[in-house]
Amino acid sequence: MDRRSFLKTSAIGGTAAAASTLAAPAIAQGNRTLTMVTSVPHGFAVFDDAAVYFNNAVQAMTDGQITIDKKAAGELVGGFEVFDAVSSGQADMYHSADYYFGGQHPGYYYFTAVPFGATAQELSTWMYHGGGQELYDGLGEIFGLKSFHAGSTGMQPGGWFRKEIRSADDFNGLKFRMPGIGGRALGMTGASVQSIPGGEIYQALASGAIDGAEWIGPFADERLGFQEVCNFYYTSGFHEPGSALSVSFNRDVWDSLTPGQQAIMEQAAKAATTHSLTQGIANNAAALKRIQSQGVKLMEFTDDVWDLFGTASLQAMDEFMDDPMYAEIRTSFEESMKSSSEWLQRADRSYVQQRDRVLNRG
Amino acid sequence: MDRRSFLKTSAIGGTAAAASTLAAPAIAQGNRTLTMVTSVPHGFAVFDDAAVYFNNAVQAMTDGQITIDKKAAGELVGGFEVFDAVSSGQADMYHSADYYFGGQHPGYYYFTAVPFGATAQELSTWMYHGGGQELYDGLGEIFGLKSFHAGSTGMQPGGWFRKEIRSADDFNGLKFRMPGIGGRALGMTGASVQSIPGGEIYQALASGAIDGAEWIGPFADERLGFQEVCNFYYTSGFHEPGSALSVSFNRDVWDSLTPGQQAIMEQAAKAATTHSLTQGIANNAAALKRIQSQGVKLMEFTDDVWDLFGTASLQAMDEFMDDPMYAEIRTSFEESMKSSSEWLQRADRSYVQQRDRVLNRG
Repeated sequence: MDRRSFLKTSAIGGTAAAASTLAAPAIAQGNRTLTMVTSVPHGFAVFDDAAVYFNNAVQAMTDGQITIDKKAAGELVGGFEVFDAVSSGQADMYHSADYYFGGQHPGYYYFTAVPFGATAQELSTWMYHGGGQELYDGLGEIFGLKSFHAGSTGMQPGGWFRKEIRSADDFNGLKFRMPGIGGRALGMTGASVQSIPGGEIYQALASGAIDGAEWIGPFADERLGFQEVCNFYYTSGFHEPGSALSVSFNRDVWDSLTPGQQAIMEQAAKAATTHSLTQGIANNAAALKRIQSQGVKLMEFTDDVWDLFGTASLQAMDEFMDDPMYAEIRTSFEESMKSSSEWLQRADRSYVQQRDRVLNRG
Repeated sequence: MDRRSFLKTSAIGGTAAAASTLAAPAIAQGNRTLTMVTSVPHGFAVFDDAAVYFNNAVQAMTDGQITIDKKAAGELVGGFEVFDAVSSGQADMYHSADYYFGGQHPGYYYFTAVPFGATAQELSTWMYHGGGQELYDGLGEIFGLKSFHAGSTGMQPGGWFRKEIRSADDFNGLKFRMPGIGGRALGMTGASVQSIPGGEIYQALASGAIDGAEWIGPFADERLGFQEVCNFYYTSGFHEPGSALSVSFNRDVWDSLTPGQQAIMEQAAKAATTHSLTQGIANNAAALKRIQSQGVKLMEFTDDVWDLFGTASLQAMDEFMDDPMYAEIRTSFEESMKSSSEWLQRADRSYVQQRDRVLNRG
């Protein structure tokens, strides 16, 4: 699909028309339509694909009893306004990335990704077997929400830069788009950090309003055309090592579902997470080759830049430790990650090293 | 749970009582019970846990319209007889590992694990986005089956040995339990390879009938008590880098389900795969510490042993290349794995190296 015609026909989020009517579950002929608000335009690769997968699975599993009416960013509310809209009952549910809502509670950062945090596999391990879902439910009680992971971008690259980053000093004054605690950490390196919804990044880059940006990964980023306006792509990043996407229900809407429908939502969300994570893994290598063939240089940050990221990230994560719920979430997350990583190092990572060595003996 | 009382009360698979009646879907009061035969005793960690998770999810999502009556190995048919039982219509469905059925068609090896093959994440990527499911469906058409992945053990260790493996020569005459193409490859190293259902491994080890065995991983293996009868545990292995478990329906049973029920089966299977994979990742590091504290030595094979495994594995995988369907499956699998691995090397693996370095700066 041509990116320009795609953007022209898509609603771009951010500044929202105020919703004129209070959305309520529509019930017709025993069937029900739930309104889902999202943070991106329809058709945005990986991010919106996960919402579509979830919605289609729910519709299929309920034999059409539940239809989800997805509203792009800006259609009902702005991309960053979905949390408040669902918490207040203006919409039934949202699909988004919960680190956009760290301002509502900093604990939410851990339910998308944190710098130097868990990979997608480690994050799912915490959610399903390490107490993560229970802590997520605890946050949801504060805001009248019931939330599940429903999508994953996998590891996100360091991002797109107009100029090469030669040392830690080059972040001074750099205008860069990055959300979450990663963005807060980047701000501590001297960069001027912007939080911009996905649908507006290309224009901000093309107009020169920002010097660089990260979005998702090669497959999703290519569709937005960043390779047309940036020369350098740093392929490994510190800020989002395995970002989850989430589906979140207004609590009253959730409670109005039958036990069977609730089970369908939970399993559809889990399946969507796997579908979405593997979509990126399947497509990123080929997308990266195409990006490279258009003249973009693939880069790795130097160790001194990684060290700077490390120092800033710990400082950014420590800022919220006065909040006991944040502290509890962080401790649980880090303990689970340590144990998972210990096993994966001994198992998968040792194996892959031997596989690469043995299969390439020639 | 005490292992001995557990074994005493569990049915052990392998030699089966012939089923006296032809199983047919039971329909009572609009509800339906499907008979699932499996390859392990009830309660076997990871393997049976995945079946239980799948069955509970289906029951919850259908609001009890479908109940799955799980039969342990040996209750209706033996652990390795489930494929033929479901293909012939003697049972409605099975939960097992499809590499047990490489004798029926060698293409099935690729739908569990092959030596030097895909990790669990790479395997799911092939299944959901690389053409794997379509090829699985093609095999299913031959045998009247409809199959999905529904569980994953993750990377399986090299296994349990009574004696240390000091060099490639030590496999000569070694009696070792290993299924799949990995087992065929091990046989080419001079080992005497046994294929034994999970429920019988402990007794074979304890009686000295075999010198060593692999099963699943620390968390599952510990429950079977292998640490009581073996001194050496090789933690990284060549033979099963991410084994999938599968649920497989008799085709007529599958066709009798409503579209909604079929969608529920498919999504429950996908969710069970994630649940199961992360169960191992969550629990293996702690189990390994307990195993080690009981005096077991944790070992790594030397490079010359890995080289031997590599040569034997390629020879074993090449044996079936005259079968065009096998060749098509292998080519598709290897192309997908190469692309996934290329991305994961640049992304997750590079990131984890930096994470370990940065967080351990002290």
